[in-house]
Amino acid sequence: MNKLSSIEVRNKARNGENFTTSGLAQGYVQTNVVIIPKKDAFDFMLYCQRNPKPCPLIEVFDPGDYESSFASKSDIRKDIPEYKIFKDGKFSSNSTDITEFWRDDFVTFLLGCSFTFENELMKNGLDLPYFKQGKNVPMFITSIDTEKSGKFSGKMVVTQRWIPREKLVRSIQITSRFPNQHGTPIQVGNSSEIGIEDPYKPDFGDPWIPENEELIPVYWACGVTPQIAIQEAKLEIMITHSPGKMFLTDLKDEDMAVI
Amino acid sequence: MNKLSSIEVRNKARNGENFTTSGLAQGYVQTNVVIIPKKDAFDFMLYCQRNPKPCPLIEVFDPGDYESSFASKSDIRKDIPEYKIFKDGKFSSNSTDITEFWRDDFVTFLLGCSFTFENELMKNGLDLPYFKQGKNVPMFITSIDTEKSGKFSGKMVVTQRWIPREKLVRSIQITSRFPNQHGTPIQVGNSSEIGIEDPYKPDFGDPWIPENEELIPVYWACGVTPQIAIQEAKLEIMITHSPGKMFLTDLKDEDMAVI
Repeated sequence: MNKLSSIEVRNKARNGENFTTSGLAQGYVQTNVVIIPKKDAFDFMLYCQRNPKPCPLIEVFDPGDYESSFASKSDIRKDIPEYKIFKDGKFSSNSTDITEFWRDDFVTFLLGCSFTFENELMKNGLDLPYFKQGKNVPMFITSIDTEKSGKFSGKMVVTQRWIPREKLVRSIQITSRFPNQHGTPIQVGNSSEIGIEDPYKPDFGDPWIPENEELIPVYWACGVTPQIAIQEAKLEIMITHSPGKMFLTDLKDEDMAVI
Repeated sequence: MNKLSSIEVRNKARNGENFTTSGLAQGYVQTNVVIIPKKDAFDFMLYCQRNPKPCPLIEVFDPGDYESSFASKSDIRKDIPEYKIFKDGKFSSNSTDITEFWRDDFVTFLLGCSFTFENELMKNGLDLPYFKQGKNVPMFITSIDTEKSGKFSGKMVVTQRWIPREKLVRSIQITSRFPNQHGTPIQVGNSSEIGIEDPYKPDFGDPWIPENEELIPVYWACGVTPQIAIQEAKLEIMITHSPGKMFLTDLKDEDMAVI
């Protein structure tokens, strides 16, 4: 599956298959997806603009549009393996096709995802054990307030990766190339400074217990941040991808690099 | 005046003085300013998101707000040396204070400006003669269409700088550090490829006739692009800074660098 092209992955999803996209169509940019009514779209776009590290905007569609400029012949209503539908801030249902829910006032947001820089970290010899073990990256809700916009606010969520001291500088350099995929770390080494009392007990994802004491906990802003902000805003309706079941664009990881 | 702090420059403007800000409060980030009604703000923010090189968003205010988060005790209605007021797409008047025109539904956009990277180019030994001669950088309307959003569309406007061949790589490196100040060039060397028939006859600003044949014309996206897009959108009302009379933030140029 990792040899598939992005359009082939989208077509599998369009045909109703339900699968996680981690590691699929390697080298293509995967995105988080948020779909909300136009009346809330200005405030949410502003929330993203004010919090670019957790909420890096890759694309915002015109109201009612469902084809991405960055994904040939795509249909955002069908091309994600699984969607989550929320009503009045509460989870309502999962679906593999949201055509029946579609409205002309829906605005789709594509946000960058850390898969892009994780590919780069691994190319540079960083060991990310949750990939090999079929687990999820550990995620923590920090004590850092995001910048508010309208109804949207909340704490920043971060991903955690334990980095060998001798790879620390390189890992910062690598992720600095991708400001649209969360960019540089927001914290190096001091978990408690961002309100993480126990770095082995994540709020989401699986724990990562380092076996080597020369590993340093490094934290990057995470795309779960806007999902929490949106849920707390209790919008009449919101649709997102299901975790780990992302939208595949035709952009290549290197297209995202600023240098 | 170049030794003034940003707040001192803002206070001069608040006291009604009318002056160009080029070279003032060096090292502080200056911004282009666009103020429009809320009903058009989503489409305009989307236009900026789709065209980040000519329209790099530094800050978007909440509707009705007039203090910048990046400028202590600032008041965007008074702290710019001169404003231009447009009604139904036509220039209406200049003013040094827009308090009387202010509305609770006005949304203020601060956009990055090339002063930031010009400081860096000069620190690195690039000669920008229009500064010494008290002239303006040459600007050209290209054949490149920007990405449309709602009523907002138009050709990309670029600034032109003649760069010595041996400084070309360095000048690309320097500007790549500042994606929020137009970033890397959009064209190197081939003026006609972007629709510039005569590189010595700019559409705006002053001509720059190079005396040395080893100078290469290099083009960067320009903040005049959104101003033209907005004028053509013929909004009921829009207020901008007057050219060269920018808003001074308390951000330092280095705060803007991604690496």
